[in-house]
Order: sequence, then structure tokens, then C-alpha cells
Amino acid sequence: MDLDIPPLDAVAMEKARQRQESLTKPPGSLGRLESFSVDIAGMTADPLPDLSEAVVITMAGDHGIVEEDVSAFPQSVTAAMVSNFAGGGAAVNALASTIGVRNLIVDIGVATEIDDSIDGIVRERVGNGTANFAKERAMSRSTARHAVETGQRILAEHAPDADIVALGDMGIGNTSASAAVTAAITGVDPATVTDRGSGIDDDALEHKIDVVRDALELHDPDSSDGIDVLSAVGGFELAGLAGVALEAASRRIPVVVDGFITGAAALAAMTIDERVESYLLPSHQSVEAGHPVQHDALGIDPLFDLEMRLGEGTGGVLAIGIYRAACTALREMATFEEAGIPTG
Amino acid sequence: MDLDIPPLDAVAMEKARQRQESLTKPPGSLGRLESFSVDIAGMTADPLPDLSEAVVITMAGDHGIVEEDVSAFPQSVTAAMVSNFAGGGAAVNALASTIGVRNLIVDIGVATEIDDSIDGIVRERVGNGTANFAKERAMSRSTARHAVETGQRILAEHAPDADIVALGDMGIGNTSASAAVTAAITGVDPATVTDRGSGIDDDALEHKIDVVRDALELHDPDSSDGIDVLSAVGGFELAGLAGVALEAASRRIPVVVDGFITGAAALAAMTIDERVESYLLPSHQSVEAGHPVQHDALGIDPLFDLEMRLGEGTGGVLAIGIYRAACTALREMATFEEAGIPTG
Repeated sequence: MDLDIPPLDAVAMEKARQRQESLTKPPGSLGRLESFSVDIAGMTADPLPDLSEAVVITMAGDHGIVEEDVSAFPQSVTAAMVSNFAGGGAAVNALASTIGVRNLIVDIGVATEIDDSIDGIVRERVGNGTANFAKERAMSRSTARHAVETGQRILAEHAPDADIVALGDMGIGNTSASAAVTAAITGVDPATVTDRGSGIDDDALEHKIDVVRDALELHDPDSSDGIDVLSAVGGFELAGLAGVALEAASRRIPVVVDGFITGAAALAAMTIDERVESYLLPSHQSVEAGHPVQHDALGIDPLFDLEMRLGEGTGGVLAIGIYRAACTALREMATFEEAGIPTG
Repeated sequence: MDLDIPPLDAVAMEKARQRQESLTKPPGSLGRLESFSVDIAGMTADPLPDLSEAVVITMAGDHGIVEEDVSAFPQSVTAAMVSNFAGGGAAVNALASTIGVRNLIVDIGVATEIDDSIDGIVRERVGNGTANFAKERAMSRSTARHAVETGQRILAEHAPDADIVALGDMGIGNTSASAAVTAAITGVDPATVTDRGSGIDDDALEHKIDVVRDALELHDPDSSDGIDVLSAVGGFELAGLAGVALEAASRRIPVVVDGFITGAAALAAMTIDERVESYLLPSHQSVEAGHPVQHDALGIDPLFDLEMRLGEGTGGVLAIGIYRAACTALREMATFEEAGIPTG
């Protein structure tokens, strides 16, 4: 990958930090809103960052691993949900419209092509779903690289001027792929990071753990090589979202991680270029058991735990509302001097 | 008080619950967003609640207890901050404008009258700050009752059509009053609920705890009588916000509790009419040590902990963004049937 991800801008951060100390509130009383505003100043190289233009990219792909009965829903749900996103009927649509976030829907490789008559879908298909990684690699190394580059190009073409981007996902079977990617990269046991996804029972969960463990033994991906991991046990949307994160970071756009699937995508991005880490922002703590493992590895601490486990970018959108408020406070609040208020 | 607070509407709640089960997501996958949408359906008696019209009421009053050196800031900051609210320069202004919440600023009794030339302040002063409750009752019983009724009237006159209301406060010294109110009503030790407020040091904190403890011994308020507690150790804004909560509940308007001061106001409201409890919604977990004690007593569980300790309604405003999103999802999402999606 030909990437140039800059370091955080220390000058902008120091200016933001000093301004926070001068605003009309007890120092530090806005807590993490203050520290995030400083971080975002560093990412954007703007001491007064404005997050008006926010985008959630909901990227959908299918997974051959569903042949192994690892999901509560049939594969056809992925394509049906992409149509639902395009029609505005999904949770991420409702949340994005409430918070004021543009929702970009991407088909990066669902199993069946979605009818051309449906508008509002970015069609950048790298395949008809991945192969069953219980039997063979999910995709070739060159396809994994192509999927990452496709994600980069999608960000560059469809949201180059975004002030902040949230990662979102859709794909029946993608918690299995994400568990495998997370275990491969962090080295934790598959049982620690494999959970119920959209809602499987105890027996199915035991089986899903076995599927993930066996696949990692079969392919033995290189934990330091994100392309190898994505190729072995990843998914098109995981690779594409990794590309989105990398491209956003190279453009100084903050990247909000959503749930377990986007966490796996962010981990893959970090193994491709560790400099992306400085541009990652947390959103929620998901119910999915492997999410804290990802947060530790990504160096981010969730904003809230609302017991959500939907994906699509739903947690990321809620977080954007908070980050936007944090930056508005930094920009728009009066200083003690401006307001003529004694400081004690 | 002549109050008529209705119970939650069970029919609306059941309709909302059934609808949540039919929407295009795995059942329960929106977590607390789903349960809150059902609760709000019950409060509003609307199975498809819409929280477009949101208001944060930031109510300011002064406290005679500042004579005892319990605060890091001088009393004049209260009036200066009210002017700052009116001018749009405070944190709550920035957050409210970002989230789309109307900010109602109320002077219910700051120590010095604020210049008439400043617009945008609801002036409903019940006094020039309270008396020093270390020496005498903060206010008479009739004044406490009047302050509560003033809060009721303010809601009725200025936000009768609000879909949701967040409580906000300003008042140098009001963490001392809130600690005393919380200890009086819940029966916990003053040391457990007295903390640093806007930022006092260790010695000042020890002193503040003594002040609260001595005042409760001096006045021995009746824990079951909110008017008695407010009269003994309360504040005008605490009483007024209790009135806002009671009036909102009687109108089926959900009430979002902010930090430690509004938590004390909500506790006082509950001792006046326990039926208000069904209409209370949490926002953040504050840094202030007594906040969890209040949450337990109020029967609410915070949405997030962002290490905030500012008051003004800042946490409440952020929470409104989340509740509004929860209700939009309930209203606007497609059902599986509408979207033609197989349910597994």
C-alpha cells in the first residue's frame, strides 16, 4: 500500500488544550469531551475542529463460512438488508438521520447482485461473497489487497471532504470472520473472541468456536501481515473498511470504530500501517465478547455501553453526536475573559 | 401540591415492544435503545414517540452556604454565568445547539439581579439567594413550596409542548446543598455524598463534609418530606427543578436527570410525589461521588460516563440525542415484512 499517514499535529493539540483551560467552566469539567476535542484537533490539524460533515460508511459483503451453519440468519439477509439500507428502513438510517450523519451504503461483494433499479448503493463488488474459510482461504492475497484498495478509493471518491467517518458493516457470517481475524492478530484464544453474533444458541456457539479454531490452524495466517490475515479468514467488507480507515487517516479524517466487525477491520488496518491507530476513535462497548480484546489492542476506550450488538455503524453514529458536541464546545464556548467572569 | 401524575401507559408500551420485535434487526440488538423507546412510549402514551421538541432548562440560584468557604469559585460567578448562558457562550449552549435542544435559562434567585438589558433569561426570582444553612434554614417552608410551584409554572408556561425535558443547574455552592439534600433523603453519611464540586482541595473537602454534617444535625429535616428538606438545606434551583420534574411528569413529558444537583432535585421531587419516578431518565455518571447514591435511589442507570462534572444540563443534552435516536429507530425502521426480509 502506498500510504502516507501523518502524525497528530502537536501544535493544534496544544492550542486546543490551552483553549480548553480558558473556557467558561471549571478546568477539566467536561471530562473526556475535552480530551477528545484535543485529540481531534491533532488528527485534523485544526485547533478548532468542526465535525459538521459526518459520514457513516456501511459496507456489506457475504461470507462463504455460512455453509458451516455459524449464523442465525440465512445469507440472503445480507442483500435484503442492503436494499433496506438503500430504502432508509434500517436502524443505521434512523440513527444517522437523527444525528445528522450521511449514510453511504456500499456493496463490496454480497453473494447475489442487487437489482440495478435500486438507487443509493455504491457498487464496488470484488466478488460474490468470500470462499468458505473452513475449507480454503476466504480470498486470494491479491483479492484481499484489491478489497483494501477498493475501500481506500471509496473514501477518496465518495467522502473526501468528510470531517469524521464512522465504519459500519453488514454481512451474515461476519462475526465468525471477525473472530478469526481478531484471534489471528491479537493471539488470544478463539473461544475468547467468538460469541453469538445475531443470536445463536449454546450448541451453535460451541460449533462456531471450533470452526474459527480449525480455520486458524488450517491457514496459520501471519499475525503481523493484515493482508495475509484478511486473505485467510477475512471478508470483503472487513478489508474494505480497513482501506477506508487507512485512507481516512492519510487525509487526517478521524475514524470512529463501531462494533466487533469494524473492530476487526481496524485491527487489520493497524497491521497494514500502525500509524492509523492515532486516528481511531471509540464508540460503544458491544455485547459481543471479543470487543474488549479489540479495544485493548486498538488503544481505545469505549464511550458507552448500551448493550447493542447490531453493527451497521449504529454505535458509531451515536458517538459522532458526542464528538461533534465536544468540538462545538471547544469552538463556540466563551473564554472567562470574553465573558468577564472571575476565575476564583 | 395539587398534582396528577398518571401511570405509564401499558398499551402504548406493549405496542412499542411488539413493534421492536418486528423491526429489521435481530431482536434486542439495539439493547437499551429498545427498552428506552418502550419506556418513553409508556411515559408519552404514544406507541411511536417523537422527541423532536426537546428543552433543557438551566436554572440558576445562589446559596448562602458559600459564606462557609465551600466552593472554589466566588458567588458572583453564578450571575456572570447566567449572562454567559444568555449570550450563548457556555458549554450547555454549545451542546444544546449541536444536538438540537432548546435551552431555557432561568434566574430563580441569584444573589444579585442581572441587568434587565440582557435578553433570553426567564426571571422568576424567589429571593436573592438562600440563607446560610450552616446557621439557619436555607429558606422558609413557604418559600420552598413557592419555589417548587414556580418551577411547575415555568414548565407550564415556557415548555408545555416539549417532548422531553432535561434538568440543568447553575449555582455556586450548590453541590453542598445537593449533598445535604441527598444525605437527608437517602440517609447515607454526608461523607459519602459530599465531593469536590467545581474543584476544591482535600482540606476544603473535609471542611465541606463537616458543614453538611453539622447542618443536618442542626435542622434534622424529615427525610420523607421534600419541602422540609429543601427548606432546611436546599436551594432555589433545586426546588424549582423539582417542580419542573413534577409538572413534566403530570404532562407525560419524560425528564432527563443530569448531574449531582439535578439528581438531588429529582430526589426531592420523589419525596413530594413518588409517581414522578416513572418519568425519570438517566444521562451520565458524573465524577461527583454522590451521584451513584442518587441513581440507586432514583431507580435509574446512567447511559455513559464521560468523566464530566459541569452541570448546566450538559449530560442531559447529550442523553437527549440518544433518546431521540432510540425513538426515531422505533418509529422509522422498516419491519421484516415491509422490507421482505427472511427472519431465519
